[in-house]
Amino acid sequence: MPTIAVIAPGAMGSAIAGRLVAGGARVLTVLDGRGAASRARAEAAGMADAALDEIAGSDLILSIVPPAEAAALARRLAPALAAAPKKPVYVDLNAVSPETVAGIAATVAGTGAPFLDGGILGHPPKPGTKGPRVYVSGDQTGPALVLRDLGLDLRVCPGGVGAASSLKMSYAGLNKGLTALASLMILAARRSGAEAALLAELAENEPALLARFAKGLPDMVPKAYRWAPEMEEIAGFLGPDAAGREVFEGFSRLYARLAAEPGAEETAALTAFAEAAAGRT
Amino acid sequence: MPTIAVIAPGAMGSAIAGRLVAGGARVLTVLDGRGAASRARAEAAGMADAALDEIAGSDLILSIVPPAEAAALARRLAPALAAAPKKPVYVDLNAVSPETVAGIAATVAGTGAPFLDGGILGHPPKPGTKGPRVYVSGDQTGPALVLRDLGLDLRVCPGGVGAASSLKMSYAGLNKGLTALASLMILAARRSGAEAALLAELAENEPALLARFAKGLPDMVPKAYRWAPEMEEIAGFLGPDAAGREVFEGFSRLYARLAAEPGAEETAALTAFAEAAAGRT
Repeated sequence: MPTIAVIAPGAMGSAIAGRLVAGGARVLTVLDGRGAASRARAEAAGMADAALDEIAGSDLILSIVPPAEAAALARRLAPALAAAPKKPVYVDLNAVSPETVAGIAATVAGTGAPFLDGGILGHPPKPGTKGPRVYVSGDQTGPALVLRDLGLDLRVCPGGVGAASSLKMSYAGLNKGLTALASLMILAARRSGAEAALLAELAENEPALLARFAKGLPDMVPKAYRWAPEMEEIAGFLGPDAAGREVFEGFSRLYARLAAEPGAEETAALTAFAEAAAGRT
Repeated sequence: MPTIAVIAPGAMGSAIAGRLVAGGARVLTVLDGRGAASRARAEAAGMADAALDEIAGSDLILSIVPPAEAAALARRLAPALAAAPKKPVYVDLNAVSPETVAGIAATVAGTGAPFLDGGILGHPPKPGTKGPRVYVSGDQTGPALVLRDLGLDLRVCPGGVGAASSLKMSYAGLNKGLTALASLMILAARRSGAEAALLAELAENEPALLARFAKGLPDMVPKAYRWAPEMEEIAGFLGPDAAGREVFEGFSRLYARLAAEPGAEETAALTAFAEAAAGRT
């Protein structure tokens, strides 16, 4: 029975873990310092709490954390990895830029453990669904193939460390950028009294986009707080493209504003637009 | 027979004029200072060259020019409008911000001529198609309804001067912003070697978006030079929304870059992606 460490037991991590447990794996995680919701998710998914040296004794370590914590997790695990007699493969599955990945890869390389880049595209797996695509890239992706036997939709992205993260950044940038763009235009139409006309135009001439907004806007609202730093990572990914950096810094600023607005007027307006849109599609 | 002035005979203006002529209107334009292509388009559409005082004697004047020229056109026509014994209705159909529209409205108000705000959503009319939606807004939209009898898909946008422009800005911002966003992510994936993986992901999981890009990217390339200032207008439209302004300033910078790139590497890459996408959808 393979032992897979999944850190942390967030919404995505615990859902991935649940699928691996159902597929026959022993799944470890770190509950030290986590709150009640994480502990409940971990228990429901069948994850076992473990100390860092036990984590370092796994076959694979899957890092699934908010982007801003990805590098810190690698540094936190590094001493245990360095001390481990048999090294696990460290797989970073986070929405981080290839530059951030390179730093994490360097941290892991210093411990002697093999490293794979990765990215998760799609929503957390639910019973009855195939689940998200889990891409990995790197020199030796073979050890990750066990995840496919355990029930994940594992795919190898050609191109070495950085390629899977680039794919994730591009895909997430399109999807979450489109939701940000829709939010900007709906809010602007609302400020100038053209919101109903915009809804009618989209219903008539862009029904596929409108259906997407009907679902995507309410889905975004509770996640805006973590999409803001993810947009910053994508701005970093865009590197030499100054125009693209400007666009994603704007998206980040928008999501931060929506996450923080005291009266929730804008998020309420977007949710109401989505409800009206759902009635038109 | 109503007399409609359409300025200028660009791709949109001449196509609108052709439809009005087919519908039974006499259509005037100003060819003074225009090049051979404009003259050829005007002739093909059945537009007649006219002096400014003749233009001011029309029933309606439709301003259809690049956004940066909209205010200048109103100033250029103002003396003739002020001198006209019977005032035509001046309809600004350009992709300009409500703030720019307010300035144009003030110029026209000074001549005593009635003013309507407007916006064109969709592509130039072609034989056999219904054509774009032509929205007008303002206090008295009645005189514009003759355009419907003449074959245009004329619609009244509630909300007074500024509402039709707001609708146009919101709709154009969504459409042209989405094409800019796709360009940014495709070019970034290409720089990091993940372009083929992104194409495969979109073909599998976002076929409607990919089909849109297959058509939208090649359509954008020859228009990027005028989309750049249009994105600036939309940034102005976003007014108090600093995040939105940042996003559309980035889009403007992108389109300016694509319009100006000496070796055309990026536009060639986007066209090639669109061709590959067309083969997958």
